[in-house]
Amino acid sequence: MDQRLSLITLGVANLTKARKFYVDGLGWKASAASDDAIVFIQLGGIGLSLFQHDALAEDAGVTPGGASGFRGVTIAQNVPTKGDVDAALKQAAKAGGSVVRPAADTSWGGYAGYFADPDGHLWEVAWNPHFKLGTNGELILPPPK
Amino acid sequence: MDQRLSLITLGVANLTKARKFYVDGLGWKASAASDDAIVFIQLGGIGLSLFQHDALAEDAGVTPGGASGFRGVTIAQNVPTKGDVDAALKQAAKAGGSVVRPAADTSWGGYAGYFADPDGHLWEVAWNPHFKLGTNGELILPPPK
Repeated sequence: MDQRLSLITLGVANLTKARKFYVDGLGWKASAASDDAIVFIQLGGIGLSLFQHDALAEDAGVTPGGASGFRGVTIAQNVPTKGDVDAALKQAAKAGGSVVRPAADTSWGGYAGYFADPDGHLWEVAWNPHFKLGTNGELILPPPK
Repeated sequence: MDQRLSLITLGVANLTKARKFYVDGLGWKASAASDDAIVFIQLGGIGLSLFQHDALAEDAGVTPGGASGFRGVTIAQNVPTKGDVDAALKQAAKAGGSVVRPAADTSWGGYAGYFADPDGHLWEVAWNPHFKLGTNGELILPPPK
């Protein structure tokens, strides 16, 4: 299996509300492939999609369940400066997200905070001096040993 | 906030077991930034990280909770052919994952199936004739209208 990831799909309670957060609030542009049932957003070399929670469970062939609390998954955006962390959290809050961990220095020598989108999906915004960002914003990890 | 995503972190019950699945089973190469507490894997322009579930919740400043059942998040890998879908699901199963939805033709004109990793994180493997894959395997969505 190739060492790749193409798409991350977030289950949402209300697609209109989720779209409003990401597109109107964060200012991200939706792909023309989006419609009333799904929203696709290009994020570098991968896609983010927003899809109704129960429909996503059905698509995966699992029961929707009542996932409450921590989902066991977080998404992160690494940014070039500490100030960018503060600015992103501020924008997310203004757009209708909630800051769940205010930005602060981290144990690993960085500066980061978390916000939750309207459906509770957790985004970390991090300045990490150990990981490089490429010219197109791609994350460049240290290569394998 | 930039239209980017840098890292997706999957909370895992047992890092050794999770590493065994992704590194030994799927054959993915871990970044040298990995250690006994976290595994980083470069996936195109983003990183996948594996981190202990409760520690991840603590990092986000939320209570670990007892997330059981559907997490409301799926990850997908799009592949060039239908045969690649079958091959990837077969490899994932051999590596210790479980096929939760066998590969089949989809309502949207593609061919896809899902597997769960040892911690229940859902991966879709999809052949989607509507979305392009670039020369480095990056997903290219139709541009915004």
